[in-house]
Amino acid sequence: MTSDAPQVLIDGLQYCNWSREIFEEMRRGGLTAVHATVGYHEGFRETVRHLVDWRTRFRDNEDLILLARDAGDIKRAQATNRTAIFLGLQNPMPMEDDIGLIEMLFDLGIRFMQLTYNNQSLLGCGWMEKEDSGVTRMGREAIAEMNRLGMIIDLSHAGERTALEAIALSERPVVISHANPRWLRDSNRNVSKHVLQALREREGLLGLSLYPLHLPNGSDTTLDQFGKMAREAAEIMGAEHLGIGSDLCQGQPDGVVRWMREGRWTREAQAAASFPAQPSWFGSNLDFPGLSQGLLAAGFDETGTSLVLGGAWHRFIQASLPPAG
Amino acid sequence: MTSDAPQVLIDGLQYCNWSREIFEEMRRGGLTAVHATVGYHEGFRETVRHLVDWRTRFRDNEDLILLARDAGDIKRAQATNRTAIFLGLQNPMPMEDDIGLIEMLFDLGIRFMQLTYNNQSLLGCGWMEKEDSGVTRMGREAIAEMNRLGMIIDLSHAGERTALEAIALSERPVVISHANPRWLRDSNRNVSKHVLQALREREGLLGLSLYPLHLPNGSDTTLDQFGKMAREAAEIMGAEHLGIGSDLCQGQPDGVVRWMREGRWTREAQAAASFPAQPSWFGSNLDFPGLSQGLLAAGFDETGTSLVLGGAWHRFIQASLPPAG
Repeated sequence: MTSDAPQVLIDGLQYCNWSREIFEEMRRGGLTAVHATVGYHEGFRETVRHLVDWRTRFRDNEDLILLARDAGDIKRAQATNRTAIFLGLQNPMPMEDDIGLIEMLFDLGIRFMQLTYNNQSLLGCGWMEKEDSGVTRMGREAIAEMNRLGMIIDLSHAGERTALEAIALSERPVVISHANPRWLRDSNRNVSKHVLQALREREGLLGLSLYPLHLPNGSDTTLDQFGKMAREAAEIMGAEHLGIGSDLCQGQPDGVVRWMREGRWTREAQAAASFPAQPSWFGSNLDFPGLSQGLLAAGFDETGTSLVLGGAWHRFIQASLPPAG
Repeated sequence: MTSDAPQVLIDGLQYCNWSREIFEEMRRGGLTAVHATVGYHEGFRETVRHLVDWRTRFRDNEDLILLARDAGDIKRAQATNRTAIFLGLQNPMPMEDDIGLIEMLFDLGIRFMQLTYNNQSLLGCGWMEKEDSGVTRMGREAIAEMNRLGMIIDLSHAGERTALEAIALSERPVVISHANPRWLRDSNRNVSKHVLQALREREGLLGLSLYPLHLPNGSDTTLDQFGKMAREAAEIMGAEHLGIGSDLCQGQPDGVVRWMREGRWTREAQAAASFPAQPSWFGSNLDFPGLSQGLLAAGFDETGTSLVLGGAWHRFIQASLPPAG
């Protein structure tokens, strides 16, 4: 950035084994804001327990982090040298089948919710199902309610049809907080050109993932390859609609992979029981600013680099979240 | 009131069978604010469902009422000709045994909580137990947490010792939102002179009840008798620490009496299965302003009358509730 405004670094998704050390690394890495996942398969009551744990973290680490409810909290974090943590859900389980719980979760601090997580949900279809029948009846209601409140709809982990329908149905721009172009890593977990185009047309945002299974060359993907991937994504999205959603799961025990993949819905192993190795150049929040090298090497200018590393997320959040209080 | 400020009328406790008609009566009765009970024996999840129902009421009747979170909302209600509804709990069941849930309930709009409701709770002892062992270990924690957040501690329905200990333990003034002097109606549900003196010493507030079983002459109590009772209470509390907590249960089916008294904790009938008849001069919010006649007849001046009908509650709320947002 050539302006006097301080650089805003935002990571659009992390699910670390939260600790003071990790929050200190966020500070040393210069992270202005992070969208942190609160849960996957937990119902309402369990989610509230997680939220209570988050309140304790905010109190115990109030010199490092703060609970962010709106864009003003990003400014507040900057002004006090802290990281603004936005809370989100990767699955709509916490709302159960009660549309009113979306508002309750919003009031408790939740600002992002995925409509699906891999499997069919009550709202739509995840990418792992054989057939995607699109946004459900209740899904339409949930989208309208999230639009009303200003809770950001996240289509990561959604099936293709569900993603396209949700983008079209939502009156507000939506995000895919952590995924990569599918043509560079052929997994339905990643996003097709068609979805990206639809997302862009509705002013949505893509957060590029650094999770090895989403990267072109897995754990061996280089920073240059990441930069090139970002360039290809920017050709569709434009840098102003492109960010990072690293999917960083730092410090999580391997059992957490199985929790993510299997929850309580199966008795069978659904995936490898361990996390893949991170790329050598991205192991923690300390490595976040270094992503700029890959972006600059791939041809982003300073403004574009600055947008991808946080500026685009910042604008999106400013346009999306209503002022709290 | 001789000043230009509009008269503030506040009822410190109601548990009506809420309907648009009742909210219209609040408006016609000139009620500026009402503290409404959300529940008695419900756990956290059920309470959240009640809160969702309240959100629906606020949306469906947004021309008449608003959800009040702080004293500013009383002003907002005045400015828009609506009634500010403060939400509260008559029992700590919704916090289960999780201190963190107090903050969650606060964020969802709860501003009052009783430490006990008739029976022993996890926090202290209700007035119907044979022996009151005072504020429990967890009760001390809950008082400190409510003080931290600014949730108002309500000692209605508490036992004598629990009430005295809670008044002493709380760093902020507390209330007895709906009860009467015990020497005028001998029920342990009412409050002794000793408790009132302790309450007054710590800047607490008493809301006078209009529930027949708390009144000197039951359903036959006259408005003059009510006024005299208020005078006796004011001799200890002063009008500036005296308000109304009518305990109005308008439109409730009789089964609600049993729900209040028996919850799910007993299989035996604990009380008469019907509500007693209201005094002829207080059957709905329409009758609220008429209480002034009883107060004036008993010797309150205009200022004192104005304090008892809302001014004292207003000051208390201004001093107690932190600004929201």
